[in-house]
Amino acid sequence: MPGMQTSERLSFATSPERYRHWRMEIDQAAAVATLVLETAPDGGIVPGYELKKNSYDLGVYIELNDAVQRLRFSYPSVRAVVLTSSLDRMFCAGANIGMLAQSAHSFKVNFCKYCNETLAAIEDATSCSGQVYLAALNGTAAGGGYELALACDQILLTDDGSSVVALPEVPLLGVLPGTGGLTRLTDKRGVRRDLADVFATTAEGIRGERALAWRLVDQIARPSEFDAATRELAKQSAARSARAVTDGAGVDLVPLNCYETEDTIVYAQVRVELDRRAATATLIITGPSAAPADLADLHAAGAAAWPLAAARELDDAISRLRFAEPELGTWLIKTTGDPAAVLATDELLAGSDDWLAAEIIGLWKRTLRRLDATSRSLIALIEPGSCFAGTLAELAFAADRQYMLDGVFDDDQDPAVLILGPMNAGPLPAANGQTRLAIRFGPDSGALGAAVAAAGTALTAAAAAELGLITSAPDDLDWPDEVRLLVAERAGFSPDALTGMEANLRYAGPESAETKILGRLSAWQNWIFLRPNASGPTGALRRYGTGQRAEYDRKRV
Amino acid sequence: MPGMQTSERLSFATSPERYRHWRMEIDQAAAVATLVLETAPDGGIVPGYELKKNSYDLGVYIELNDAVQRLRFSYPSVRAVVLTSSLDRMFCAGANIGMLAQSAHSFKVNFCKYCNETLAAIEDATSCSGQVYLAALNGTAAGGGYELALACDQILLTDDGSSVVALPEVPLLGVLPGTGGLTRLTDKRGVRRDLADVFATTAEGIRGERALAWRLVDQIARPSEFDAATRELAKQSAARSARAVTDGAGVDLVPLNCYETEDTIVYAQVRVELDRRAATATLIITGPSAAPADLADLHAAGAAAWPLAAARELDDAISRLRFAEPELGTWLIKTTGDPAAVLATDELLAGSDDWLAAEIIGLWKRTLRRLDATSRSLIALIEPGSCFAGTLAELAFAADRQYMLDGVFDDDQDPAVLILGPMNAGPLPAANGQTRLAIRFGPDSGALGAAVAAAGTALTAAAAAELGLITSAPDDLDWPDEVRLLVAERAGFSPDALTGMEANLRYAGPESAETKILGRLSAWQNWIFLRPNASGPTGALRRYGTGQRAEYDRKRV
Repeated sequence: MPGMQTSERLSFATSPERYRHWRMEIDQAAAVATLVLETAPDGGIVPGYELKKNSYDLGVYIELNDAVQRLRFSYPSVRAVVLTSSLDRMFCAGANIGMLAQSAHSFKVNFCKYCNETLAAIEDATSCSGQVYLAALNGTAAGGGYELALACDQILLTDDGSSVVALPEVPLLGVLPGTGGLTRLTDKRGVRRDLADVFATTAEGIRGERALAWRLVDQIARPSEFDAATRELAKQSAARSARAVTDGAGVDLVPLNCYETEDTIVYAQVRVELDRRAATATLIITGPSAAPADLADLHAAGAAAWPLAAARELDDAISRLRFAEPELGTWLIKTTGDPAAVLATDELLAGSDDWLAAEIIGLWKRTLRRLDATSRSLIALIEPGSCFAGTLAELAFAADRQYMLDGVFDDDQDPAVLILGPMNAGPLPAANGQTRLAIRFGPDSGALGAAVAAAGTALTAAAAAELGLITSAPDDLDWPDEVRLLVAERAGFSPDALTGMEANLRYAGPESAETKILGRLSAWQNWIFLRPNASGPTGALRRYGTGQRAEYDRKRV
Repeated sequence: MPGMQTSERLSFATSPERYRHWRMEIDQAAAVATLVLETAPDGGIVPGYELKKNSYDLGVYIELNDAVQRLRFSYPSVRAVVLTSSLDRMFCAGANIGMLAQSAHSFKVNFCKYCNETLAAIEDATSCSGQVYLAALNGTAAGGGYELALACDQILLTDDGSSVVALPEVPLLGVLPGTGGLTRLTDKRGVRRDLADVFATTAEGIRGERALAWRLVDQIARPSEFDAATRELAKQSAARSARAVTDGAGVDLVPLNCYETEDTIVYAQVRVELDRRAATATLIITGPSAAPADLADLHAAGAAAWPLAAARELDDAISRLRFAEPELGTWLIKTTGDPAAVLATDELLAGSDDWLAAEIIGLWKRTLRRLDATSRSLIALIEPGSCFAGTLAELAFAADRQYMLDGVFDDDQDPAVLILGPMNAGPLPAANGQTRLAIRFGPDSGALGAAVAAAGTALTAAAAAELGLITSAPDDLDWPDEVRLLVAERAGFSPDALTGMEANLRYAGPESAETKILGRLSAWQNWIFLRPNASGPTGALRRYGTGQRAEYDRKRV
């Protein structure tokens, strides 16, 4: 039935009244929000496992991701966020093992990636938005449960004689902590690497004083004092927050309007066209018709304001495509609209110290990083009528290649232009902290300087090519063949080799904890998940919970 | 038969008169060495393939590694090294595909690692030893052949209308360039990442002017002018070399004396004991009986001088064990001797600007990095009679854990001590440029400062524990059980999970091109080598050369 909702595509949209696993409490007076985890055992996103002991699956993280984002937009006065649980002596047992054991390799990898992006969003909220996260571990935090705590600014652990923090993946499951635990132990918390080795091989975990001495947690508190300690730490976090005090109203993140068919995913500002024969998805982002008149206008428009709506829609489309359409290996990225309106919107956002403007820029930053971390070939097609300017030009620089038409298809068209602006020179850094232009030009600072100096100029294909901003500038006669050949070539290569190659090239230049997690941990995890020692019939993931020990091929690779 | 030479263990020792694939020519007057590649088709290190078109296997790289090292020690006056080939229009076709297709997964991974370490040694010779490498590509450099060129300081390509540089791994073989090609393109040469994408997906490669414009090579020359251009560039490289001019004699790297049995590998200063039941190898490094009296004494001793002999032996032992004993998953590292003699030797080496002293320090640096990159659990056992001081203390800090006996086993023993010295604070950096102590303490600069301030003090177990320099300090009653339990525990874990965990923790902190290659590329390559798209019956590696196209599972992961 044409126009039918395809049920295979997961939805990433939710809102607090629909949460099944989290409860969001807002204490306006204290400027503190609390997210309470209590997973619904029968609330798995697919059948086949029970979410006991606050173990999680993708659905739990979709809600967490929504909560983190919503706190930034809808509750601007919140300055500290407490993560805790309502279970007795159990904060979170980590990813559900039954879910992992039954999942396909590609799902496991995408699931870890989505969780990692959510944890990065928690750290970003703390460092960039002044919503400082505190993990109040009222019980054991194991595996991914402890990794969730590690993403917080501080960790408080109950000292009840039994609750532990633990990373039991290596000893029990034969896999790595999959959401950045090892990197955050050493690089973020300064845990000595030999102690990290002991910790990550101690299945039963570490509690109380020792967890404190090893820097695994920041504070411990007896059960009778735990709530008071949590309140006090939250108060200190709120006081430490760099967030400008605001009593303005937040923006309600109303549900996205998304209309799906077999071959299209259509939002207000973003349209995705799927071509299964060519193995492509074409993402078309519509630019704003005009910039908001001023900040009051931006606030009044709220979730309908173009820059916020477009970023949310693009973010949602990326996640849907990643999970639901693994065989569409090449994404073609197009824009349509008025470059001047994009640049005017950028100017309003970047030129103010308004909290909403900052949040919108931050959402674009994270959405672009989600694109960087997507295991698909990304090709920007810059054609007449497009608006690759400022923030939207960043889409082109996130792509693996940029093709720009030299000339026009029809005589009544104006040639495409590419226009750089302030958004390309700082506010939207990639995961390593550098701008995408700096990564593009690498050690060649002269080329970077020339590109930045061209900001504001409407660059034709020839000018953009001269500055090294595009890969190729075919004319209208060559364009269809060049694009078709490129798509066919990409479809003929090994998808695994492309994924590895693109990850290496996109994460060129300096590294950060975030690039190590997205660019390196992913690779190790891909490998380990695939090995018989983890996923084979006698592997640890398959044997877990059966009472039988895993059987390993003992050879070191 | 006891004492029999076990033939399964590869030898990593060779010398120019035994080379089958390289010719070393020294032009003393010009201070230029030339390494000419001409692989012997029937000279494979194991049967089953022919080394045509200057394709290589491990044996070719063992010779190259020997040549790079020998030039530093035996030819101190050499200031520039030219890599070229004697074949017509073919510099090097890369790793032999038949060899890769017939090799086990673990061999492929170890092979790539050894090649990567050799390429790092070429860059280290250029930057630290003033032996500046020049790739004179008299013909096509494809795949690993071009990656060998990328390790050189400059690349000259013949402009003969047909010779190309190429990275055909992704389009032809479904794997990644395995020896750092992608990282060196962007991070070292500043090739734009979109052009790197085009280049690494263009099977036929890129020649002449375009290779120059894209920064894939530094210079091109017509065939008639190629030799003159090579000589001129070598002359400029020699002039640019920072090597202090020396007319002193070099040190002859005489063959190592290595006596192997089924369960031991015995050198003069290094002894390895294999325990197959416990799955351990115990490496025992004997310290010097006394330091050389002075530099003249060091030069006179040459290859017999303790610091040079011990480093060469340890380096050789690491490589042998990696390839031949994959099931011995834990290495126990011990030392025996006089700590004062180690520190006196360190003082002589570090306190001079003598070229030989610098070369010996450099060899220790590279040997320790080889240990860092070894996929085995490394445990330092610090016992009475040991000499973990200065350079040898670095062995302990390279390990994943450090166990130090608190007390003595027998009343006539003195307790073990750990002594830091200048060698722990700079001259032996890990691959990311930081000292191992800095990596150990991470963001905790106070702990690092306290440790460095304790240099020169003989630290007992209690003092070393207080400073965070050791993991555990059992007494003589607990020691045997603790060590036995640790070894048994390690043997019970998934070898793959341990490899991934150790690599993450050892490469904590900042990253460099070298850590990206050893720590990240290895992971991607491990994964890709294992995927059916590469290594399955219809995968690209298996189908290569059969005339049949590979069949891929098109799903992106």
